[in-house]
Amino acid sequence: MAENLKDNILLTDYYEFSMANGYYLKGELAEKPVIFDYFFRKNPYNGGYAIVAGIERFLDILSNFKFENDHIEYLKNYPLSPEFLEYLAKMKLKINVYGFQEGSVVFANEPILEIEGPLIQCQIIETFLLNSLNYATLVATKANRMWLASGKQYILEFGARRAQGPFGANIATYASLVGGCSGTSNVLAAKNLGIKASGTIAHSWIMSFPTEFEAFMTYADIYPDNTVLLVDTYDTLTSGIPNAIKVGKELRKRGYDLKGIRLDSGDLVKLSNEARKLLDEEGFINTKILISNDVDEYFIEDFKKKGGKCDIWGIGTRLVTAYDEPALTGVYKLAEFDKSPKVKVSNCFEKTTLPAKKRVVRFYDIPYNNNSTPQKKMVGDVIFNDTEIKIKKEGLINGKMTYTTNLFNLQSDEFDKVENIEYSGYESMLKLLFHNGKRVKQKLSWQDAQKNMEQSIEQLRAEHKRIIHPTQYPILISENLSKLRTETIKKYIK
Amino acid sequence: MAENLKDNILLTDYYEFSMANGYYLKGELAEKPVIFDYFFRKNPYNGGYAIVAGIERFLDILSNFKFENDHIEYLKNYPLSPEFLEYLAKMKLKINVYGFQEGSVVFANEPILEIEGPLIQCQIIETFLLNSLNYATLVATKANRMWLASGKQYILEFGARRAQGPFGANIATYASLVGGCSGTSNVLAAKNLGIKASGTIAHSWIMSFPTEFEAFMTYADIYPDNTVLLVDTYDTLTSGIPNAIKVGKELRKRGYDLKGIRLDSGDLVKLSNEARKLLDEEGFINTKILISNDVDEYFIEDFKKKGGKCDIWGIGTRLVTAYDEPALTGVYKLAEFDKSPKVKVSNCFEKTTLPAKKRVVRFYDIPYNNNSTPQKKMVGDVIFNDTEIKIKKEGLINGKMTYTTNLFNLQSDEFDKVENIEYSGYESMLKLLFHNGKRVKQKLSWQDAQKNMEQSIEQLRAEHKRIIHPTQYPILISENLSKLRTETIKKYIK
Repeated sequence: MAENLKDNILLTDYYEFSMANGYYLKGELAEKPVIFDYFFRKNPYNGGYAIVAGIERFLDILSNFKFENDHIEYLKNYPLSPEFLEYLAKMKLKINVYGFQEGSVVFANEPILEIEGPLIQCQIIETFLLNSLNYATLVATKANRMWLASGKQYILEFGARRAQGPFGANIATYASLVGGCSGTSNVLAAKNLGIKASGTIAHSWIMSFPTEFEAFMTYADIYPDNTVLLVDTYDTLTSGIPNAIKVGKELRKRGYDLKGIRLDSGDLVKLSNEARKLLDEEGFINTKILISNDVDEYFIEDFKKKGGKCDIWGIGTRLVTAYDEPALTGVYKLAEFDKSPKVKVSNCFEKTTLPAKKRVVRFYDIPYNNNSTPQKKMVGDVIFNDTEIKIKKEGLINGKMTYTTNLFNLQSDEFDKVENIEYSGYESMLKLLFHNGKRVKQKLSWQDAQKNMEQSIEQLRAEHKRIIHPTQYPILISENLSKLRTETIKKYIK
Repeated sequence: MAENLKDNILLTDYYEFSMANGYYLKGELAEKPVIFDYFFRKNPYNGGYAIVAGIERFLDILSNFKFENDHIEYLKNYPLSPEFLEYLAKMKLKINVYGFQEGSVVFANEPILEIEGPLIQCQIIETFLLNSLNYATLVATKANRMWLASGKQYILEFGARRAQGPFGANIATYASLVGGCSGTSNVLAAKNLGIKASGTIAHSWIMSFPTEFEAFMTYADIYPDNTVLLVDTYDTLTSGIPNAIKVGKELRKRGYDLKGIRLDSGDLVKLSNEARKLLDEEGFINTKILISNDVDEYFIEDFKKKGGKCDIWGIGTRLVTAYDEPALTGVYKLAEFDKSPKVKVSNCFEKTTLPAKKRVVRFYDIPYNNNSTPQKKMVGDVIFNDTEIKIKKEGLINGKMTYTTNLFNLQSDEFDKVENIEYSGYESMLKLLFHNGKRVKQKLSWQDAQKNMEQSIEQLRAEHKRIIHPTQYPILISENLSKLRTETIKKYIK
């Protein structure tokens, strides 16, 4: 759907407007400089990481941020002052956005975006920011887990029919691609993303012909170079595959090969092995097996362990609905107000937010004196107070360094456990993406984001990428930031 | 978002087009009359029923069904014949749709929609039909369970920030209202549905003032007649509620009442009781308690059992993502092809589909000789072959009748178990909704659909409405249809 991005300005919980009106009426508050953080509290699917997506869409919405006449007219139905509505109508964004790159590996509890600007503006964008990032990140991460479980095989997103809404389907497709998928069945999403959709036949095609063979042969006549046959309508082993092989032989006579068969039900480990054997025996060694049942990363991993044979995966429901955890716990919290650090205090100390403007530094181990391409690996992310960073650069040249300031583990049960990091390289992760209401760089395509993902996931050690029971990646905060948090909390306790 | 419904024509899995092109090239097939059924295999959330929604949206898409130039241009990228694309460009829908009314109680394994028309047309609409009904039905059902668990209290949908995509949020709002919700926080959805969004303040409001009291008082100054205060930013019992009461007393002096407080964290049973006590002691007996934590129907039921005090619920994530079961197993299956019955055979007999054009008759028990309004109750739905229905009408007048033909329980483990139904009234549920490409009646508003829901849910016995372990409602098939199915299956077995 050619989305009307401008309407997203109203994709906003009403309280953003009721608060903004309040800030406006208290004149001095409206334009106070503030900083909000976007982060999530838990890696989805009990996994070890997430792939961030939705930043580009969020920046698109910001780039089109303008209250139109019909928006203002509608808002006149609410108890909002006319002066405030006039102010909205004339509003020009003065926001800065710092953030990770679309497609990067990110972790729970570290800021993924920092939004800097006047209070009213930072408040109004909350809902569509959360809406843009939460779902896309959830699906990109799900796709990535499936892609890794498959050994980076070809995965097609087949979820349009089960997606939570039509736009859901489009964002799902985009995020699936960022996470590692190779294509989609959804024609509209493919059109919007500038790619070609995939797909061949459904059971109804087979059932519309007197026999399965006739159904297969008719399809092969029309698409001889793209014949992928669905073999489970009647019986996979006694009917579907023998008929597919008959059609394959016919195609061979005409100079084509049988491109693939699709399995959609039954004991897929067993069926895929039998299918592979039957196909190979008849010389169809290049014929691909596509599996499209209710697949997810747990299934793929188990299937591979048991020796199942699959070349291409068609994944619908469990990918686009993020079935086992259909919401990301992404939140947007005030970190600084008028240059004073702020925290949201919680009974649960780990849930207390981090104050002030921050910097996230990713430390790497880059093997020293290695003649081949160095296998740069991530060793930990440290969250600093923005003002404090002094990292020894010589580490990059002279081998491993130990980060000497005390670091506090943000995810540990013992919160005050001090840790150090050995590193030989580092990178500051929150880049300026949007400045004073405008994009700093050109929009990344999904292909760019997918490349970011591939590079980033390559740098993550295998133990953090396990589907089940991954080792926790170190997310640390500096001593300075830890102290600032404690001081800020104290202010609220009389 | 003012949705461009026309683009939904491409919200289609590509195989629909590759098949349609095939049917077109086999000239005689394209226009063959067929019947497809839409149904789902399992009531969501292990519940006893579902509330159907999304039918009106599906009919909207059908009413706007036309391939535009840019759709056709895009489809030229695929191996589809130019004649077929020309045919698509000129296509006029000749489809009939029979179905339940939006908002009705429906059950697993009964046809909810029957689509009748030329093969190509019935095929092309599959994906957006499934996309329209699956998610909306899922959310309407979820909302309904929450609404019933709360004792039909006032529920607000707060899910925009966690919804799976922006349009997802809009459909979620609509479906939530159909299912029994009373409002939404989402301004865009409210605008599109012609209602007003709800909401007051977030934690960031409180944190933008030097003290909680000042934050509360400022809000009350601006919105004295709609002051709902979020009381958990620092400490609910020692700070939030005492400050709210102070503000309430100030409002009282000015002739207003404190409208409500909102609890968003902590032990909500305990906090809500303490809050109610503190408020009542100070005479704020009309001040409402709004709860907006991660709420679902299981939480509500438990909260009520334990004596928690709540007047209004704000429900986000678990409603709009249908958290514990984020996809409905709705499918679209060929039932008749060129006047011949068809089934999709499955190894699992209960998964084998039902052939032919069907009628769903809902039988009721209507208490006889009752002077008050009769409490009409549903006693079972029977699926008949469309050609066979002869139901004794006198049952309506002369008290209970027993349906004498053998009926087969579709959901039973023993498939061939024969059952009878005692009834004193009945209704044919699949009404003609769309005829020869046009709506038969005006579109139902969400209010109409909500009324259907209320009436329908009133007719469902309590045992089928339990949140956990409901009794299974009888879904039966007639002997005639059962025989037809067996005969149709036999044709596939050599």
